[in-house]
Amino acid sequence: MRYSKIPNETIRRLPIYLRGLAMLDRQGLKSVSSDKLADFVNAPPFLIRKDFSYFGDFGTRGVGYDITNLSRQIKKILNLDPGHKAALVGVGNLGSAVLAYPGFKIYGFEIEAAFDNDDAKIGKKIGRVSVEDISKINTLVKRGIMMAIIAVPEEAAQQVADSLVTAGVKGILNFSPKRIAVPKKVKVISIDIATDLARLPYYIPSS
Amino acid sequence: MRYSKIPNETIRRLPIYLRGLAMLDRQGLKSVSSDKLADFVNAPPFLIRKDFSYFGDFGTRGVGYDITNLSRQIKKILNLDPGHKAALVGVGNLGSAVLAYPGFKIYGFEIEAAFDNDDAKIGKKIGRVSVEDISKINTLVKRGIMMAIIAVPEEAAQQVADSLVTAGVKGILNFSPKRIAVPKKVKVISIDIATDLARLPYYIPSS
Repeated sequence: MRYSKIPNETIRRLPIYLRGLAMLDRQGLKSVSSDKLADFVNAPPFLIRKDFSYFGDFGTRGVGYDITNLSRQIKKILNLDPGHKAALVGVGNLGSAVLAYPGFKIYGFEIEAAFDNDDAKIGKKIGRVSVEDISKINTLVKRGIMMAIIAVPEEAAQQVADSLVTAGVKGILNFSPKRIAVPKKVKVISIDIATDLARLPYYIPSS
Repeated sequence: MRYSKIPNETIRRLPIYLRGLAMLDRQGLKSVSSDKLADFVNAPPFLIRKDFSYFGDFGTRGVGYDITNLSRQIKKILNLDPGHKAALVGVGNLGSAVLAYPGFKIYGFEIEAAFDNDDAKIGKKIGRVSVEDISKINTLVKRGIMMAIIAVPEEAAQQVADSLVTAGVKGILNFSPKRIAVPKKVKVISIDIATDLARLPYYIPSS
């Protein structure tokens, strides 16, 4: 389900709020103010209130937001409810780190398949998955896997993206600093760790 | 230098614009419209124009933004001009991927030091750096390194952050999904790759 009037910038923050709410829930809290949530998610309270206003107001003055209710609503908006399977392409250092990453579970994601073109890696079991030959990418959709993570070297990224599109994958998380081109029906989200490092000096006064 | 009226959300996008401008520059372009830049940075043109309006207007109607001039200005705002050295803590899969990452250069970053607590890794040379014992973190500031990247397992992240703060580091890029606590004078930017994956299903219509 799409809530077409929610800005992309708000959508970007919803998973961060969801993670903050999960932490507060583990601490045993039932409700939280936008001020307190702000501490957890590193966004100003007014922005949090504005973001939540796009999909209804869950806050009660003086009490705050009901954590269970708000989490459920965010999951519904993000379409996380059914749980999702994802595939990884590229089992190098970065890919191996992705496979070991503990943070996907709270969003209902499981990495169910991993692919590489290196014979030395194919067949190896890493965590719950066995590395498969990259030529098997075309089996993804029939296995119910509509999303993939690209963690291959820069120069191979476009070719892998093309194979994923041909295989019928609908969403790609791209770790390569290279921009990949896909048809409009496929959504790509790119992560460039350098852009986050590049913001740090702004906040550090020169001595 | 801080431009205090620029919102954090704009600052977050500036490195992405800078990367887009660098790509356009490599293509031999001298100027770019907000519409064309929008394609490269995956942000709507109105948002780009609004972001640039915070620090002056570089656009000429019908011609667009001068790429060299705009890039220079963004670098100045982000305090990237002098170039920056960074350290890496944790040379596991993720840390090794960070060391090999080609995307830092366009922002003037060099990773000049790497630390681990594993004797099997200490002394090994990876790319340009030799892995040092984690107890040497206290030498960072006298080596002119004020920023560090944390790529250690979740349960070690806070302890490493504490050592970095004690060492005098001013900025931390945290890859652990764990929230780390630091004094206010230290800036932490956290990267959680799961939050990006968690946005994908929103954009993928259920079949």
